[in-house]
Amino acid sequence: MELAKLEKQLSFLREIDRLKSVVRQSPLLDKSRKENSAEHSWHLAMYALLLSEYACGPVNAHRVMQMLLLHDIVEIDVGDFPIHGGSSKEVHAEQEARAAVRLFGLLPQPQGDELLALWQEFECGETEDAKFAKALDRFQPLLINIHTGGGTWTENGVSMEQVFSRYGPVIQRGAPLLWSACEQWVTQHFAQ
Amino acid sequence: MELAKLEKQLSFLREIDRLKSVVRQSPLLDKSRKENSAEHSWHLAMYALLLSEYACGPVNAHRVMQMLLLHDIVEIDVGDFPIHGGSSKEVHAEQEARAAVRLFGLLPQPQGDELLALWQEFECGETEDAKFAKALDRFQPLLINIHTGGGTWTENGVSMEQVFSRYGPVIQRGAPLLWSACEQWVTQHFAQ
Repeated sequence: MELAKLEKQLSFLREIDRLKSVVRQSPLLDKSRKENSAEHSWHLAMYALLLSEYACGPVNAHRVMQMLLLHDIVEIDVGDFPIHGGSSKEVHAEQEARAAVRLFGLLPQPQGDELLALWQEFECGETEDAKFAKALDRFQPLLINIHTGGGTWTENGVSMEQVFSRYGPVIQRGAPLLWSACEQWVTQHFAQ
Repeated sequence: MELAKLEKQLSFLREIDRLKSVVRQSPLLDKSRKENSAEHSWHLAMYALLLSEYACGPVNAHRVMQMLLLHDIVEIDVGDFPIHGGSSKEVHAEQEARAAVRLFGLLPQPQGDELLALWQEFECGETEDAKFAKALDRFQPLLINIHTGGGTWTENGVSMEQVFSRYGPVIQRGAPLLWSACEQWVTQHFAQ
């Protein structure tokens, strides 16, 4: 066995341990604390495992799951980008792209380039797999807000119209059936 | 769309949010706190994504990843079973089996039975996929202990011989190449 190759793979796996310390805006469902990006990624992979029947087009669940497992690791370098925040999306995207090159660059080749390409595919959101993965990444925090009586919407004074415009297009594009369910739940939530 | 089916899937996905509150014995690598079982499951799925070349036999990385994503959800009902603890393994296994039936029973059929079967396959540890998944589940905490200067070994006064007997057979069986690397690291660790 080539020990140098394994060492590179393990140095990557050690580096991404830090994703467990990146705190997101969304709370746990029991509201005991905020969710971190590692457990969020686990939860999303479980969403992909269970819900691929609702994808807009034919998807490869294995690739979707992989994308969701690694989509947030750039936050190790640049932090979480809150959907209801005010900072520049373009600057943030550039920082994330640099972080991806650094992090996947820890891996041996061609593995590093393959995973970087998968991360970039997710970011572009053009393939069926990426569209569905992005829809789930937007669907999960929406459900958290619904089931915690408002969550980040209440905290940030987000209106129903803003929920529709910030979540709708991405979920609708990758998982239209899930979005039609969301429309009902969001409407009911704001009616209360 | 059958909304009742989606509701069952989402009730399962809400229930497993509780795995984020199950605390394990292992620390994060920066020792800031103990790891929880949800982020541990994410990390293991990343191990599966990167290291399947070291499996003993031919494995289906997608199935291994799925097993690792869901292998710990029974801990929502019964808690984590520490490798260096003293309680009865048989009683614990029975409790876990009941928890699996309850949790996967939240899902619509046949999805619930399929995932229950996958969980049982992992527990039995007889197929190539399960042997490799189990090896990774033992490999990750070993690495944490090596890279945190002893971790749960120091806390529990675990000897080198106990490390060899508690980790060796499972890692050796599913990923012999990883175990030969471990033998070196463990020997070096206890020599210091």
